[in-house]
Amino acid sequence: MQPFMNDDFLLKTETARHLFHTYAESLPIFDYHCHISPKEIWENKSYENITQVWLYGDHYKWRIMRAVGIDEKYITGDGTDYEKFLAYAKALSLAIGNPLYHWSHLELKHYFGIDETLNEKSAPAIWEKANAALKELPCRKLIEMSNVALIATTDDPIDSLEYHKLIREEGAMKTKVLPAFRPDKAVDPTRADFAEYMGKLSEVSGVDIRTFADVKEALHKRLAFFHENGSRVSDHALDYIPFVEATEAEVNAVLAKALLGQPLTQVERDQYRTAIVKFLAAEYHDLGWVMQWHIASIRDNNKRLYRKLGVDVGNDAILDVHLARNLSALMNACAEDDKLPRTILYSLNPNDNYTLMTVGGCFQGEGVFGKIQLGSAWWFNDHIDGMTDQLRAFANVGVLGTFIGMLTDSRSFLSYFRHEYFRRILCNLIGEWVENGEYPNDEETLAQIVEGISFKNAVKYFNIEL
Amino acid sequence: MQPFMNDDFLLKTETARHLFHTYAESLPIFDYHCHISPKEIWENKSYENITQVWLYGDHYKWRIMRAVGIDEKYITGDGTDYEKFLAYAKALSLAIGNPLYHWSHLELKHYFGIDETLNEKSAPAIWEKANAALKELPCRKLIEMSNVALIATTDDPIDSLEYHKLIREEGAMKTKVLPAFRPDKAVDPTRADFAEYMGKLSEVSGVDIRTFADVKEALHKRLAFFHENGSRVSDHALDYIPFVEATEAEVNAVLAKALLGQPLTQVERDQYRTAIVKFLAAEYHDLGWVMQWHIASIRDNNKRLYRKLGVDVGNDAILDVHLARNLSALMNACAEDDKLPRTILYSLNPNDNYTLMTVGGCFQGEGVFGKIQLGSAWWFNDHIDGMTDQLRAFANVGVLGTFIGMLTDSRSFLSYFRHEYFRRILCNLIGEWVENGEYPNDEETLAQIVEGISFKNAVKYFNIEL
Amino acid sequence: MQPFMNDDFLLKTETARHLFHTYAESLPIFDYHCHISPKEIWENKSYENITQVWLYGDHYKWRIMRAVGIDEKYITGDGTDYEKFLAYAKALSLAIGNPLYHWSHLELKHYFGIDETLNEKSAPAIWEKANAALKELPCRKLIEMSNVALIATTDDPIDSLEYHKLIREEGAMKTKVLPAFRPDKAVDPTRADFAEYMGKLSEVSGVDIRTFADVKEALHKRLAFFHENGSRVSDHALDYIPFVEATEAEVNAVLAKALLGQPLTQVERDQYRTAIVKFLAAEYHDLGWVMQWHIASIRDNNKRLYRKLGVDVGNDAILDVHLARNLSALMNACAEDDKLPRTILYSLNPNDNYTLMTVGGCFQGEGVFGKIQLGSAWWFNDHIDGMTDQLRAFANVGVLGTFIGMLTDSRSFLSYFRHEYFRRILCNLIGEWVENGEYPNDEETLAQIVEGISFKNAVKYFNIEL
Repeated sequence: MQPFMNDDFLLKTETARHLFHTYAESLPIFDYHCHISPKEIWENKSYENITQVWLYGDHYKWRIMRAVGIDEKYITGDGTDYEKFLAYAKALSLAIGNPLYHWSHLELKHYFGIDETLNEKSAPAIWEKANAALKELPCRKLIEMSNVALIATTDDPIDSLEYHKLIREEGAMKTKVLPAFRPDKAVDPTRADFAEYMGKLSEVSGVDIRTFADVKEALHKRLAFFHENGSRVSDHALDYIPFVEATEAEVNAVLAKALLGQPLTQVERDQYRTAIVKFLAAEYHDLGWVMQWHIASIRDNNKRLYRKLGVDVGNDAILDVHLARNLSALMNACAEDDKLPRTILYSLNPNDNYTLMTVGGCFQGEGVFGKIQLGSAWWFNDHIDGMTDQLRAFANVGVLGTFIGMLTDSRSFLSYFRHEYFRRILCNLIGEWVENGEYPNDEETLAQIVEGISFKNAVKYFNIEL
Repeated sequence: MQPFMNDDFLLKTETARHLFHTYAESLPIFDYHCHISPKEIWENKSYENITQVWLYGDHYKWRIMRAVGIDEKYITGDGTDYEKFLAYAKALSLAIGNPLYHWSHLELKHYFGIDETLNEKSAPAIWEKANAALKELPCRKLIEMSNVALIATTDDPIDSLEYHKLIREEGAMKTKVLPAFRPDKAVDPTRADFAEYMGKLSEVSGVDIRTFADVKEALHKRLAFFHENGSRVSDHALDYIPFVEATEAEVNAVLAKALLGQPLTQVERDQYRTAIVKFLAAEYHDLGWVMQWHIASIRDNNKRLYRKLGVDVGNDAILDVHLARNLSALMNACAEDDKLPRTILYSLNPNDNYTLMTVGGCFQGEGVFGKIQLGSAWWFNDHIDGMTDQLRAFANVGVLGTFIGMLTDSRSFLSYFRHEYFRRILCNLIGEWVENGEYPNDEETLAQIVEGISFKNAVKYFNIEL
Repeated sequence: MQPFMNDDFLLKTETARHLFHTYAESLPIFDYHCHISPKEIWENKSYENITQVWLYGDHYKWRIMRAVGIDEKYITGDGTDYEKFLAYAKALSLAIGNPLYHWSHLELKHYFGIDETLNEKSAPAIWEKANAALKELPCRKLIEMSNVALIATTDDPIDSLEYHKLIREEGAMKTKVLPAFRPDKAVDPTRADFAEYMGKLSEVSGVDIRTFADVKEALHKRLAFFHENGSRVSDHALDYIPFVEATEAEVNAVLAKALLGQPLTQVERDQYRTAIVKFLAAEYHDLGWVMQWHIASIRDNNKRLYRKLGVDVGNDAILDVHLARNLSALMNACAEDDKLPRTILYSLNPNDNYTLMTVGGCFQGEGVFGKIQLGSAWWFNDHIDGMTDQLRAFANVGVLGTFIGMLTDSRSFLSYFRHEYFRRILCNLIGEWVENGEYPNDEETLAQIVEGISFKNAVKYFNIEL
């Protein structure tokens, strides 16, 4: 029996252990997509207790707590921080097999030096020990401890990027902190706040927005601003992939309705979305950026919970939709003009892995190493099975050695150990292949593959100087 | 090499063996969903030979026999019972990897004391031995041998529950035998016998059925009657999840057409189904019942076979439909009024596991331990791979320690060993995690988890005194 | 650690090794579906270098090369053969886990006697060695070395089958070479060349084609011609399964529009396709043929690549569609008239395995051993995971011992080692079950199952005298 979570956690073979400890473990982290706050980084936010850093914004943990029937008071309500911590400790013990079990203990171990298992009995002592350690751990210290080479946050096109500027001008961090362009509010004309948002976009860009050409001009300006501020990557959340072609006049008509707050049909929504995504893809291409599409989530399902707590509160789920036809058509529409940027495709539905890989595979080439990527297992797939399936799909119908690897996608400064978790899973899989005689024990190539996926491929792919 | 099906069958690690033999093996069975006949229990049905108890109603076995090309005469036709047994023995040998291979041998071993492998050669001797043993094995004896604490049968709302009453009044069985409410005939207005069924429902409830309010009143009365008779669980078969909201007047109009036997559009069908499922969910909630939704089967596909043999003859299959949007909407419609009962979601399509888990996860909480459950691997998924996948999905995006575990879903009194099969798979999975260092070897918590999933969680969830 | 790809490659247990080496390894190959050219067989085509036989038509390899960013010049362009070989060697090293890595090395080993690993460094020496060996390896020699009992090519209904006749009349090959009937151009009335094709069909059949009855008569004649020339199998590529019933008059109307090159609605397309597939199924049934349906591919996605290189250039992908309802309806429409032939169902989408197995299972029987088959893992699924999943699905809900096993589906004369790859995976899976105590170690039955799936079941199923 292996001890729980020792140095060789998840590494079942000698080769796996060798590859991880020799090549993967000490590489820096290139975190090309996350949701941490540049303001908090700038302010070097500190925490009074572990509940603040662990439970305040982490809807993964909230779901676990709700599943065991803990009262919302001790999840997002007015329970004390200590009560919330105890409640989580109690829930966690039953979450055998859940990645939170591993993440939580990896975080306790690496940031707080705590080796004990967290459960109802150990919780009081761990509370004390973690809080004591936390006194010396403001968020910049957590980043530094994690050996993070780059952080790409997630920012709205209208954002002033003031904290990014302040961080840059200060020049005190070894970690590069860059913005990423997330134009969801400009892309979906059926959002309740669309017209209001267009007003803000108009203001910040100085472009009076009446026609689709105006929207494009305004976004073009914001892209230039983001580019100046170091951004090299965008991100789109799409429930499904739209594809309805339309003339400029038709798109203008949809926009006009949307600006008046009139309801749109699904076809109208998709005419607009098709046009703007295609436009933005071409812009990203011309700027040399990477484009990310996050597909197939269904949000805010429990409306009472939504009204009570708002968005991003553990109220989202996996959507099942057909992707292949529209994905093929939309990527082709971009490629027809030779304006398809490097693209990372994520679906929240694990059933889509092979469709994404094979459609994406038709748009590889153009001299780019791994131009179209299946993104690392996302959100509800971010566990051993999901990550292994993603890696196997990538390998089975693509070239795994081109993969750009892991990202945290997290709101927490403690989530960097998800990279370690990923690297262990990666090395275990590769080690298994080598030990089974399915790939030669060729040290040089294995090192190249492991280092590439752990760090180096991403550096090359995003083309950002570190 | 492990001997075939010994005491440590399916238990690959020391921890798995320890957990199974120490905590899971001897627990009683809480069979909260099956299709056995209360009449047969009351009459303590006995069998002349193994074909009667094994092959007469078991369409799983019929499919195996048809797949190898056995003439229907020896499956459901006028072949002798002995010929049918021989035919099954012949087919079974080729069904390597199929759960029937395991179930059949588990049943031969535990009920008939037969350790030999069943095949064409051994069949004659096994026929004699099994039939001799069967003389002492009427159905109540089979139940007793299986250590069954509770049986919930599947009953129509218009059922008199007379056999349940007789069993209860007799008071001779240690096993609690309760009815379950399966209102499919009242829920689907496009069934050929809908109007006729409404006539029967009217008669048995004493409610003249003209409007939707009448249907609701009639079902309300039947629910009260079932509740008095101990029922605490309902069950719905839904090809897909309907969700079309309608006014009471619109539903009345659909009902009026259906009562006249007029054809309905899909929208009309779903208006009615949405309204009645939502109504029933609220009723279950108020009664403190558990609701089950069985989704995504396509029935009676081969129409010649259907005309010849009717329903439930091995003529059903897995349907592929999108579930997330309507599942989210229908659960939310129930939850909006705070009337969502504890709910178990089953899809026949294994691709749906993660969608069901994550949509369901948005409706957890309200102080209930494991309120929304992904049901144990159902029907075509009831094999080692299917059960393992269901457990892994439950663990990966939920809290496995809250799972209420296995049910037989069977028409046979010999199927209780499917619980043993399940518990072995469960302990093997948990044992693997512990041995790999993915969960601590904490005896107390592991015992709690294993005993919970094997038996205790279901007792708590259904809230029935044993 | 196992050495890379030794004699026990992929065989992890003693039982697996025993079954493979004793029963599977030396059996002939029954290649019931491939895309090699009868003309090349007749001409006994030879090759100047390994690039010609390895890279000239192999779009699997092209995708790998594009994924690492190799310039199209060295894939399908005017690079030299040597440059292309070097480029492939470089790409292959990074394709860890991809079946091409295994196939390529199996082929180097068995046809060229090369045991070295192919990579950038070893490529020059391997180029020399392979090309030297290739001098003695025209395509008939490759077939002979592969112990191929039968080859079924893929032929258009209007084909003259002249090369098949020449090969047959010559009588020099030990391998039986037969045509297969692939009527895709006659089945889809929306193809750009439909009217033109109907002209050719008219000419070759001597039937003036104006009505649907004429199409049927023409195809009936071609079927008779194929039957005379030994064909016993057909093949249909269907993006999705159509099912829209129509009167003969309606089908005539669709045909008339199609012959005029007018655009058709989806319903019209499917009316025609439903009618013609149903007609052809009945014809196959009456001739005693086997019918294959290849479902769920989406082709030629990157239109620029398509315009540049045409079809079958690594530009296809996995389509996600719902299959169950139409599959059930179309199979039933055939079965209603008792005209459903033996049928092999393939979906390019691995998510469909269980749907195909369970819908197909409703049409088993009629005294045929394994009448409805889930085809071996196809194309993008033709890797260890995909083949294992297909075998497990077949076993979990069907009778694996009836499976007719592997086919190459290839354009290359070197692909016969995919059968060895498959047999290793099969024996490993069965060996694992036996070693785990999940199936008895019954030598006689295991031999029957392994030999059946490797070769003998297909011989019986296709009913062709060897």
